[in-house]
Amino acid sequence: MSDSIKRVVLAYSGGLDTSVILKWLQVTYGCEVVTFTADLGQGEELGPAREKAVLMGVKPEHIYIDDVREEFVRDFVFPMMRANARYEGDYLLGTSIARPLISKRLVEIAKETGADAVAHGATGKGNDQVRFELSAYALNPDIKVIAPWRDWDLTSRTALIAWAEQHQIPVPKDKRGESPFSTDANLLHTSSEGKVLEDPWEETPDYVYSRTVNPEDAPDTPEYITIDFERGDGVALNGQAMSPATLLAALNDLGRKHGIGRLDLVENRFVGMKSRGMYETPGGEIYARAHRGIESITLDRGAAHLKDELMPKYAELIYNGFWFAPEREMLQAAIDHSQEKVSGTVRLKLYKGNASVVGRKSPHSLYSERHVTFEDDAGAYDQKDAAGFIKLNALRLKLLAKRDR
Amino acid sequence: MSDSIKRVVLAYSGGLDTSVILKWLQVTYGCEVVTFTADLGQGEELGPAREKAVLMGVKPEHIYIDDVREEFVRDFVFPMMRANARYEGDYLLGTSIARPLISKRLVEIAKETGADAVAHGATGKGNDQVRFELSAYALNPDIKVIAPWRDWDLTSRTALIAWAEQHQIPVPKDKRGESPFSTDANLLHTSSEGKVLEDPWEETPDYVYSRTVNPEDAPDTPEYITIDFERGDGVALNGQAMSPATLLAALNDLGRKHGIGRLDLVENRFVGMKSRGMYETPGGEIYARAHRGIESITLDRGAAHLKDELMPKYAELIYNGFWFAPEREMLQAAIDHSQEKVSGTVRLKLYKGNASVVGRKSPHSLYSERHVTFEDDAGAYDQKDAAGFIKLNALRLKLLAKRDR
Amino acid sequence: MSDSIKRVVLAYSGGLDTSVILKWLQVTYGCEVVTFTADLGQGEELGPAREKAVLMGVKPEHIYIDDVREEFVRDFVFPMMRANARYEGDYLLGTSIARPLISKRLVEIAKETGADAVAHGATGKGNDQVRFELSAYALNPDIKVIAPWRDWDLTSRTALIAWAEQHQIPVPKDKRGESPFSTDANLLHTSSEGKVLEDPWEETPDYVYSRTVNPEDAPDTPEYITIDFERGDGVALNGQAMSPATLLAALNDLGRKHGIGRLDLVENRFVGMKSRGMYETPGGEIYARAHRGIESITLDRGAAHLKDELMPKYAELIYNGFWFAPEREMLQAAIDHSQEKVSGTVRLKLYKGNASVVGRKSPHSLYSERHVTFEDDAGAYDQKDAAGFIKLNALRLKLLAKRDR
Amino acid sequence: MSDSIKRVVLAYSGGLDTSVILKWLQVTYGCEVVTFTADLGQGEELGPAREKAVLMGVKPEHIYIDDVREEFVRDFVFPMMRANARYEGDYLLGTSIARPLISKRLVEIAKETGADAVAHGATGKGNDQVRFELSAYALNPDIKVIAPWRDWDLTSRTALIAWAEQHQIPVPKDKRGESPFSTDANLLHTSSEGKVLEDPWEETPDYVYSRTVNPEDAPDTPEYITIDFERGDGVALNGQAMSPATLLAALNDLGRKHGIGRLDLVENRFVGMKSRGMYETPGGEIYARAHRGIESITLDRGAAHLKDELMPKYAELIYNGFWFAPEREMLQAAIDHSQEKVSGTVRLKLYKGNASVVGRKSPHSLYSERHVTFEDDAGAYDQKDAAGFIKLNALRLKLLAKRDR
Repeated sequence: MSDSIKRVVLAYSGGLDTSVILKWLQVTYGCEVVTFTADLGQGEELGPAREKAVLMGVKPEHIYIDDVREEFVRDFVFPMMRANARYEGDYLLGTSIARPLISKRLVEIAKETGADAVAHGATGKGNDQVRFELSAYALNPDIKVIAPWRDWDLTSRTALIAWAEQHQIPVPKDKRGESPFSTDANLLHTSSEGKVLEDPWEETPDYVYSRTVNPEDAPDTPEYITIDFERGDGVALNGQAMSPATLLAALNDLGRKHGIGRLDLVENRFVGMKSRGMYETPGGEIYARAHRGIESITLDRGAAHLKDELMPKYAELIYNGFWFAPEREMLQAAIDHSQEKVSGTVRLKLYKGNASVVGRKSPHSLYSERHVTFEDDAGAYDQKDAAGFIKLNALRLKLLAKRDR
Repeated sequence: MSDSIKRVVLAYSGGLDTSVILKWLQVTYGCEVVTFTADLGQGEELGPAREKAVLMGVKPEHIYIDDVREEFVRDFVFPMMRANARYEGDYLLGTSIARPLISKRLVEIAKETGADAVAHGATGKGNDQVRFELSAYALNPDIKVIAPWRDWDLTSRTALIAWAEQHQIPVPKDKRGESPFSTDANLLHTSSEGKVLEDPWEETPDYVYSRTVNPEDAPDTPEYITIDFERGDGVALNGQAMSPATLLAALNDLGRKHGIGRLDLVENRFVGMKSRGMYETPGGEIYARAHRGIESITLDRGAAHLKDELMPKYAELIYNGFWFAPEREMLQAAIDHSQEKVSGTVRLKLYKGNASVVGRKSPHSLYSERHVTFEDDAGAYDQKDAAGFIKLNALRLKLLAKRDR
Repeated sequence: MSDSIKRVVLAYSGGLDTSVILKWLQVTYGCEVVTFTADLGQGEELGPAREKAVLMGVKPEHIYIDDVREEFVRDFVFPMMRANARYEGDYLLGTSIARPLISKRLVEIAKETGADAVAHGATGKGNDQVRFELSAYALNPDIKVIAPWRDWDLTSRTALIAWAEQHQIPVPKDKRGESPFSTDANLLHTSSEGKVLEDPWEETPDYVYSRTVNPEDAPDTPEYITIDFERGDGVALNGQAMSPATLLAALNDLGRKHGIGRLDLVENRFVGMKSRGMYETPGGEIYARAHRGIESITLDRGAAHLKDELMPKYAELIYNGFWFAPEREMLQAAIDHSQEKVSGTVRLKLYKGNASVVGRKSPHSLYSERHVTFEDDAGAYDQKDAAGFIKLNALRLKLLAKRDR
Repeated sequence: MSDSIKRVVLAYSGGLDTSVILKWLQVTYGCEVVTFTADLGQGEELGPAREKAVLMGVKPEHIYIDDVREEFVRDFVFPMMRANARYEGDYLLGTSIARPLISKRLVEIAKETGADAVAHGATGKGNDQVRFELSAYALNPDIKVIAPWRDWDLTSRTALIAWAEQHQIPVPKDKRGESPFSTDANLLHTSSEGKVLEDPWEETPDYVYSRTVNPEDAPDTPEYITIDFERGDGVALNGQAMSPATLLAALNDLGRKHGIGRLDLVENRFVGMKSRGMYETPGGEIYARAHRGIESITLDRGAAHLKDELMPKYAELIYNGFWFAPEREMLQAAIDHSQEKVSGTVRLKLYKGNASVVGRKSPHSLYSERHVTFEDDAGAYDQKDAAGFIKLNALRLKLLAKRDR
């Protein structure tokens, strides 16, 4: 804490923890705090955040509350979805992809307000601290980053609450005890981890889920929908044009209703340990499947397989916090290059946890019934060609076999 | 057809098509035919294959009917599952993985019977011809391969049936018309393609499915199961030890009942065109998810991520027919090396098309509650370490940012 | 040869072989032949090609002789060099990279002249047929491609010469016997293969080399040069601005003089066999080393390592003839994205076969003496950070070790 | 320094710096020091190390001086060479590969002597600290690691020497001033960095080189040698069988004489900054080229290309210190699997900095003159097969072109 800090921009949710941080920054550094509260579609009222900030002495012009939902989906979620990114085979990176956007705004606001530091409420054990800080440093190499959870001595819930009360921060009743799990939410997903989820052999209790109905309680009748894509991005639901955030929100409603997008995962954190998380990505899961569906008829094999080979690295980069790294941008350039003709319509069946692609069509389809048919193909394909194709593919294997017998 | 053939081993199902091929080989080459009929768990009676072969003059000692189910699962399916292989993100390679085994037996039988050629009933448009032939050449570089569908002029169903009748081959009534789709089946999966599936916008009609109930008709109550793994391979279901094929068969029953493992896919064939297939892999889908589940707590991050990066290439090799190629074996060596401690138990919930991992435990677990807990961790992890970790990971990004601003 | 051909554009060198092909096309197809002779910097007079074409009845307006040297270097060689592409670790792809350009012009000329086919003089055993034809089909899917070496029955040199004489094609004295090796040349390289090179244990005889002096005969005094780069491409030699082709030509002179760029290689052809080739890439070798040199101070580690990982696939695509495939273009997009700041100056020492980078500087250098110094760095780097960095990188290994002991 | 240390094993060279560390450990921790001095072929007398240790009070039974040259080459250098590993395209990893072996012995000796810690003399800015420590933790997760350069306050040369004199450590005259560069040496290479090398635009002064003559001073006559390989490892020089370390030492002599293996490189450190190093790897450079040479005729294309794709990651793992990580071992398993038939003889020409493969032969050669010949091949290869091969490889490109025109 030797650094002298004049003014710090805090990623502020309005909740107890970041309120304590706000005060702690004022007390510890004797500095001015600027608050930034992002509406990422987490579904919480943001008004109270403003009130609390005012109460704690933040100047009105230093209270930033921004609706960044469209930017979030358009510039972060959709580019990532173009890559079909899933970390460790399954996780749709809902938390990971929001962090760079928050850092970007923190750094921008720091510039606007002449602040010399930014601060976040992520702990020292998780990935989010890495994501916040790598993004901040990549965007402003001179910025200072304060991570109170790594620095203070409020190492237990009791200590935190005592400190809050001592500093006149109101502590809601339901925050007095230990929360049974902690969550992060935005328009793409809600994640939960900790406490009741810490034994990976125990099934996630149903009360942990907040964004989806239990598939067993979902409608008994399937629902069919269509999603239209243009150049790799979703543009319409059931034929109705929608902005990125509106589309994702509408898919979230559908996914919630049909119990789609629940994921119970043990994953490998960048900081070195395994953790068990529960994710709900209702609209994202539907969208991800639809995107693969439209690619399946519009993307050439070479492009599709290259994308599949690059995906694990791309997903790992986002998970680890390297959104603003040159290698992520290089991969994005390759991926985006492939999406020019990824346009058309995908039809999906939603039913009790399943989101299945059942149809796809496109003006740019590469699927050729004429070539694939078992019927007479009017000369589109000469089966004799296959003999030579196989012979030359086999040649090296034959030479090997001759040698090794 | 200039090659002179003395004796040929035919992959013989006993069905109409391969019966026509049997006769056609006799007529065209004036050669002896040896038949090989594999019980891969496709669920068909194999007795009739013997009778028909006898009727067409195959010597009794030249009729091979082998139960290869255990070998299939143990030496082909399970090694592939260790890799979490899915072609183009989804396809569990049920047909691809059976072909090398059939070729292996064809080549072995050719050696035993002094045959100079092998023959198969795959068409000139598909991947199977490639898989059969690459495997055969890799195992015996001098073997001749006959692919009648590429060579004869029976290019329509009508021509084929006429030829059959002309040569006294009985044509069952239901084979007279065109089949609305064609199928391949084994213990791992059933695939269907062609005709009614040729328009990728049209939903697969329900009558195409044969291995699974429609999720809508599956039980309304979830079923929980456990699968035990030893060194990367499944060894028990619900605590009851089972051989590989027995385990997969039991999982197939469960998957069938709960409507699990249906996949409607447009895929890219090795021969260059796209095709639309419908796959049912009931037990395989459950097994694949369980395997990832046990890996999630027993595999180190470095190993897990390397596997994810190698997987697309590995799956492509199997899909393209390169099972017996050195690069597949190299990848297998890497994958198998990772599986030594992949032992433990996975608990899954099966419900209307979903097979969800809900618990995993292992004597070799790398998951450490002590490290991950939000509670006091008794010094297992020093949050201060994260600051240095982030600083050095950020260093190159800061240097970049300094340069580029 | 059932296809009826009206007019065909032939890649015509003016040499004996393509002259025979010209005549053979006229005789076999009764079609008009359009000739295309490219000046790729192969260092041959192109006038005689015109005369011979006229003599064989090609219409003057159907004789295309184009200087494509600048296009070749700017649009093919330089983009490839941005990737640091070397096939199988060594080969700088001098032949591979010229073929797509030739095919592109063949297809363009076919359009201009209303031709329905293109023809080339590559044999059925090599890679060039694949490169020519994949490129042609990718640019015009309806074009017909004629590859006489695969179709005719002139399977021996004697037969070819007899046919030539029978059709009044002059046969130069030195072409009567078998050539001891065959060559391909352009501004980037000369390759030689065949006959005297066919035993890979025998050293390449000195008379095979044509583009470089033997290092033993090169000057005894080193020569120092500088190359300037802008955005990944060479722009100046020793401070003097040059066009791409001019720069490569000047580097060729330097490389020739100092015996640089000889390579004796056994490589794996796409068609399945191994071949032994001898390559001389004098200027290309110098340029390739210089490019890596300038990247070493201007490219971030993440970008550099991603490039290294992608390179083998990129090189393989070019070697195999997939220049115009979407996956090559995707990789190019990623590579080009990385080159924006790859500007600066590299200093090299040329001496008897060696081209060694001895200095590099750039206005965009990421090299920071301040960070790397053993001296006091004024706080640029806190060595304590390394402790946390190592601790967290070690965490998974420690957890593994605890489990496995 | 809060940890209480009982006994520590120090990687001790006998030089001034590690002598200061030895004393500093005794003074700071009041602990017993065990010294480990490895003969890695660095070419220094090890006797003095023993004497100095004795003088500083180390018990005779706690002074370990081991000749690990054979283990180093057999178990570390050769396995790495099987992968053709070069970091960032060029660096043969001479320092990186020695660190895991030293750590392995440190941990073994800690066990033998009941020590609870190990210590090394690497600074906090370099890669070596990471390599030492990751290896140590991977082999004993409970070991403590002391890195005095990160902990003490001897931040200048003057301070170090003052401290040495104050503690009766003899300071040789030539160590009083600043060394113009620092070096690391073992049987594989010598590296130099720092001071006079810190400006990457300045050519490395000749006096920095110690392991090779300047190519300009090397013999004017080339020397031809042969190296025999068995299963991927070198076993003989010029027909004379040699142990791994003996072979590498003999190649070092040859490389030194002919000025081979000098490398001037700006590289990216794992800790985030770029550094400029000068490497001399005389025997290693010859060996690496020879290994690629023998692979070129004995390795299948699929295996060779997979190796090339895996190599950058493998090299990065070694560079970053992850020798004992599971993913390095997985890659090694794949690589080793490929080497079974990599046996035979390579002939090289050594001349003024060049080590060129000029011949290779093997009882397991896959090179088939019969297939590759321009002459009549007696039916080994049917050129007509190439037509079908190209057609099917082109099919997807044609479908793309039809769509996109």
